[in-house]
Amino acid sequence: MGVSLMLNYREQASWPNAFGQQQSPIRLSSTLGANEGPSLPIMVKRSPLLTTVTNDQTTIKVIGNGTTQFFNRPSAFQQVHFHVPAEHVVDGHQAAMEIHLVHETGIGQKTVVALFAELGANNQPLQRLIDAFDAAAAVPVNLPLTDWLPQTPRGFHYLGSLTTPPLSEGVEWFVITNVAVTLSQDQLDWWQAHFPANNRALQPLNERIVERYGVK
Amino acid sequence: MGVSLMLNYREQASWPNAFGQQQSPIRLSSTLGANEGPSLPIMVKRSPLLTTVTNDQTTIKVIGNGTTQFFNRPSAFQQVHFHVPAEHVVDGHQAAMEIHLVHETGIGQKTVVALFAELGANNQPLQRLIDAFDAAAAVPVNLPLTDWLPQTPRGFHYLGSLTTPPLSEGVEWFVITNVAVTLSQDQLDWWQAHFPANNRALQPLNERIVERYGVK
Repeated sequence: MGVSLMLNYREQASWPNAFGQQQSPIRLSSTLGANEGPSLPIMVKRSPLLTTVTNDQTTIKVIGNGTTQFFNRPSAFQQVHFHVPAEHVVDGHQAAMEIHLVHETGIGQKTVVALFAELGANNQPLQRLIDAFDAAAAVPVNLPLTDWLPQTPRGFHYLGSLTTPPLSEGVEWFVITNVAVTLSQDQLDWWQAHFPANNRALQPLNERIVERYGVK
Repeated sequence: MGVSLMLNYREQASWPNAFGQQQSPIRLSSTLGANEGPSLPIMVKRSPLLTTVTNDQTTIKVIGNGTTQFFNRPSAFQQVHFHVPAEHVVDGHQAAMEIHLVHETGIGQKTVVALFAELGANNQPLQRLIDAFDAAAAVPVNLPLTDWLPQTPRGFHYLGSLTTPPLSEGVEWFVITNVAVTLSQDQLDWWQAHFPANNRALQPLNERIVERYGVK
């Protein structure tokens, strides 16, 4: 790979790096970047089927399987987990909850689809996960997530990181902003009684490009 | 993103990371990983057309345009440059030269296709670049790289980094091993007279998965 400065190959140990400059979450805005098309290039080929609920100490994590294509390239659904309150902030608004659907390719490239949930009606799939939750054990469930994924997802696309250690970069983010997922005050109360707030602080955008799809 | 240890969200500044654990180049081997298919999922949609030769101090860099699909997802060709001797080592062999074709998506995800050149017949496209090379200025060329990309590419696929600063991770590598590109002793002599060796040291594989395609 080329750089514009003369590199000394005998001093490789002292080469500078830019690790940690592409972290997540970030502040998103409808005025950020260019509009690239009417909808995010996400196509669910096999809807995420949740199979096992586990207590991740800071959140409920639900393992499962499924396949989603991003820009026509398939990636395997691995797990979904929840942040309360939301991690990404969109146009100054922080949602009550952010749902992360984590996908991975064969060599470990991660793609996370983020959805937001606002206070409102009771969320049935979330209630099934709450009902199945057991602090001491992994619990089987059988729950398709079709309802949470919109036919025409709109939102943001950018390159970031895991939001918990090891904070690895090279994570592709699709942040969907047009999903009308809700959770009830009872569900939020249950959540806050079981877990402390688990939203990572907003990270600097630095030199990154954010793409918008259908966000006006 | 979930982890198995209890995270303290009030101590985020002290969270550990794994930056620098997925670096390139690496040592590759026909016995590494699983064979995923007969050929690497690379499809050239618009052959790289080289337009401008620049002196990058440590190598010739040639900027151009084109589009290649990786797993059916398009990425834009940006530039090609050269490492002498090769950076990746395959089954213990280090080629005379390694050619890096760098591609990038709209949000900055980099994909590098690596090809090797061995000592042999004169390489015509390379000779045109050498002839166009001028240490003082960027020089226009008009050169399609079709000859260098095989119809059925075979080799390795893994997640790594840039091999020069900023050493950014999340770079997708396709290392093609079945290309019969050669360069002559005269061309190699010219190269070594103009540039010192510019191969980065081999980096540890750590926990990464390497996929093979058509490598036996």
